[in-house]
Amino acid sequence: MAKLSPFACAFLEAEKAYAADEVPVGAVIVDSVTGEIIAATHNKMECRKDPTAHAELLAIQQACDKLQSIRLEKCDIYVTLEPCPLCAQAISFARLRRLYFGAYDPKGGGVDHGAKIFNASSCHWSPEIFGGVEEEKCAQLLKKFFINKREL
Amino acid sequence: MAKLSPFACAFLEAEKAYAADEVPVGAVIVDSVTGEIIAATHNKMECRKDPTAHAELLAIQQACDKLQSIRLEKCDIYVTLEPCPLCAQAISFARLRRLYFGAYDPKGGGVDHGAKIFNASSCHWSPEIFGGVEEEKCAQLLKKFFINKREL
Repeated sequence: MAKLSPFACAFLEAEKAYAADEVPVGAVIVDSVTGEIIAATHNKMECRKDPTAHAELLAIQQACDKLQSIRLEKCDIYVTLEPCPLCAQAISFARLRRLYFGAYDPKGGGVDHGAKIFNASSCHWSPEIFGGVEEEKCAQLLKKFFINKREL
Repeated sequence: MAKLSPFACAFLEAEKAYAADEVPVGAVIVDSVTGEIIAATHNKMECRKDPTAHAELLAIQQACDKLQSIRLEKCDIYVTLEPCPLCAQAISFARLRRLYFGAYDPKGGGVDHGAKIFNASSCHWSPEIFGGVEEEKCAQLLKKFFINKREL
């Protein structure tokens, strides 16, 4: 039977965040050699009362803990939204091989927008970057979340 | 009896990091109204095998957990080194009131250098910033650490 793609798993994580009333962003880290999913999680800022509990950061922490390594050079990260500067810098520190992200985020993104972390002179590692993966689907889920928030 | 200043506590934390063979950076978060120390910690990247376990990030997580709040508007952070982009963004998300930092970090800093997080168009909160606090002392400890590393 066909397996879910890593990006589909990240989207499922985003839906879990939505159901838990968290900003719906999901992230998955995959061993690029074996294809194994090393970490899969979503935003947990509200439930943990932690402004740093972003999907990507939690996924990196999970993966490093699982592999008992501070570096993830053989791994790729899939995330449903353009990472913010905090998460982009964490991706750089963890030396992830590739970054695939869904919706672009002109307001809060830190890859193609704002601080553009990977372009900064002090950024010593940049992954290969693929943006706009299933962009419409990822953006729609975020839009639905914020429309519901405004109607409360 | 006179109490240690928050910055002196942050330096003590940096010395703990040095003793534990971690890059010697310490951070302290203080309630600006009561003067109480809410969090005090240091870099733990190596011992936790977590590239995101920077002093400031851990201090923010500790403080938010203690106050059960995702925002730290009444708190100030004291750190012995200019925060990197990851930590600067975390300080912005946590809405810390003031940032006091020690040594400037032209290579890895994200406040006055590199991504200059607080100057980015997508940065929605900036603390009041005081740089170069006990700069020489903080820089010396870092220098000693890296010289020893090179001699190994």
